Amino acid sequence: MRAPTREGVLRAAEKVAAILPPTPLLRVEIGGVTVWAKAESLQPVGAFKIRGAWHRLTDFSDEERARGVVGVSSGNHAQGVAWAARELGIAATIVMPSDAPAVKLDRTRELGADIVLYDRAGEDRDAVAAALVEESGATLVHAYADPWVIEGQGSSGIEIAAQVAERAGGAPTRIVCPCGGGGLTAGLALACPDAEIVPVEPEGWDDVRRSLEAGEIVAVEPNPPPTACDALQTLATRPVNFAVLKARVPKGLAVSEAEVRAAQRFAFSRLRLVIEPGGAAALAAALAGKVALDGRTAIILSGGNVDPATFAKVLASDN
Amino acid sequence: MRAPTREGVLRAAEKVAAILPPTPLLRVEIGGVTVWAKAESLQPVGAFKIRGAWHRLTDFSDEERARGVVGVSSGNHAQGVAWAARELGIAATIVMPSDAPAVKLDRTRELGADIVLYDRAGEDRDAVAAALVEESGATLVHAYADPWVIEGQGSSGIEIAAQVAERAGGAPTRIVCPCGGGGLTAGLALACPDAEIVPVEPEGWDDVRRSLEAGEIVAVEPNPPPTACDALQTLATRPVNFAVLKARVPKGLAVSEAEVRAAQRFAFSRLRLVIEPGGAAALAAALAGKVALDGRTAIILSGGNVDPATFAKVLASDN
Repeated sequence: MRAPTREGVLRAAEKVAAILPPTPLLRVEIGGVTVWAKAESLQPVGAFKIRGAWHRLTDFSDEERARGVVGVSSGNHAQGVAWAARELGIAATIVMPSDAPAVKLDRTRELGADIVLYDRAGEDRDAVAAALVEESGATLVHAYADPWVIEGQGSSGIEIAAQVAERAGGAPTRIVCPCGGGGLTAGLALACPDAEIVPVEPEGWDDVRRSLEAGEIVAVEPNPPPTACDALQTLATRPVNFAVLKARVPKGLAVSEAEVRAAQRFAFSRLRLVIEPGGAAALAAALAGKVALDGRTAIILSGGNVDPATFAKVLASDN
Repeated sequence: MRAPTREGVLRAAEKVAAILPPTPLLRVEIGGVTVWAKAESLQPVGAFKIRGAWHRLTDFSDEERARGVVGVSSGNHAQGVAWAARELGIAATIVMPSDAPAVKLDRTRELGADIVLYDRAGEDRDAVAAALVEESGATLVHAYADPWVIEGQGSSGIEIAAQVAERAGGAPTRIVCPCGGGGLTAGLALACPDAEIVPVEPEGWDDVRRSLEAGEIVAVEPNPPPTACDALQTLATRPVNFAVLKARVPKGLAVSEAEVRAAQRFAFSRLRLVIEPGGAAALAAALAGKVALDGRTAIILSGGNVDPATFAKVLASDN
């Protein structure tokens, strides 16, 4: 597999800018410090995943376009691939866990993709996808272990750099981001070589944090605790991601489920944004005082696809 | 009172652009038609009211600045005035109804304003404000019956015109907006002289709709029905607003409480935005098929300040 590059990120940013306006960078105060929230939840599919999918699918050859695309995702990458495929007239099949939020399943279907469900506990999603690819000759677009996907997600960092420079008078010092498999994190590291990149994971699912500490890829321990952050439930990062992370990202952070809920409520009342649990992980770390903040710190709100009943419960609870 | 002018709107738009980035214009499909949602809920105070307040207060003389400002508002104009006053170092007193949403009272206080409560049922808020002005010599900034406020709110129309031109290749044909006293509606009418402006009010509070039909100002009937749209509970428009409306706005629309709730749920799941009841009125009319839509129609989502428990109830209900 080729390595993702900064040139690739810049090319992705140009392609994304041609079809999607930059997502807003919203000013917000945390503990008396003005920081910048990057609202990726306002992308057409409600998450940053549209970026990587667009960069990848627009680079398909005519033959690849004809054979279709297969994606594997708990729902945001699914919608990103389905959206890009629809725009380009490519047939899409998405492998999704049967316990994915209904809103993610419904939206992916609406975008015209075929959905193949698998059981998160008992089936290997990569094996399901591999069988589909073998059968159809379609191209697999992995949710994070793909150089195009990494470069595409990095386009958010190119937007952040321009927006922070305009609003705060200088380059971003630090970008705090939710982290699943490390696609976005690696993309940001390539996009903003002078910024500190801080990936944030749910407690018990902090394999990237532990991998950075260990200096090698470490998987999630068996029987991880339940988490509301469905978008961040990845078992391990991959070499194509970790090569970038190891070189550029000193450490990761973990947040509790209660910290995530507090962040969702903060985004609701202070930013008037609907943020899904996984999308609020970076904000959770900032609110919990786990990360240094300054006037050129950006916090990525990576997604907003959450079932209404789930969100109502978070609003009603106070912890 | 001087009449608001298009030149005033253009001047307001320049002043607003110098301190606030344009709010995003989000693409959304309604009944197969692509339309454009203007997310004024993403302003720093969660509503478009920051525009008129900023235009008015920046035009205060030094003497007026020293004597302070008095505002009257159920909460969004309150925050707009308090925000502008804080930025400019002006003392602000806001007259608010005791039944205003807690989030609006809290935020206005946080912005450093003094709050004077009045009883919506038993007291005349304008009399309360007049007494404060008499006592302190402060300048009253009315929530809608003020030429600066009208011009300032119109700055959203200048942004819409530029954004629709860029995204949809032409001037907006139609702008659908929530309507309380008619400040925003009149401002949009001045800002976009070639667009159809469609004000939308809650049923039973549709005095602007009825005034346009009658050709003269008509107040809300006694004992109006309860409405969740606290931001749109104005009893009558005023001559400074109606002079513009009568000349430029053919008719208004009314929406039911259930239609408003459906619009809040739509904004939640399709746009990942928190929209307060009053802020969702225009979207409600569009979703209910009460207004014609085309590819250059803009729908204003005017505010997002809503108590979490109220919002959770809307999410949990299905009508």
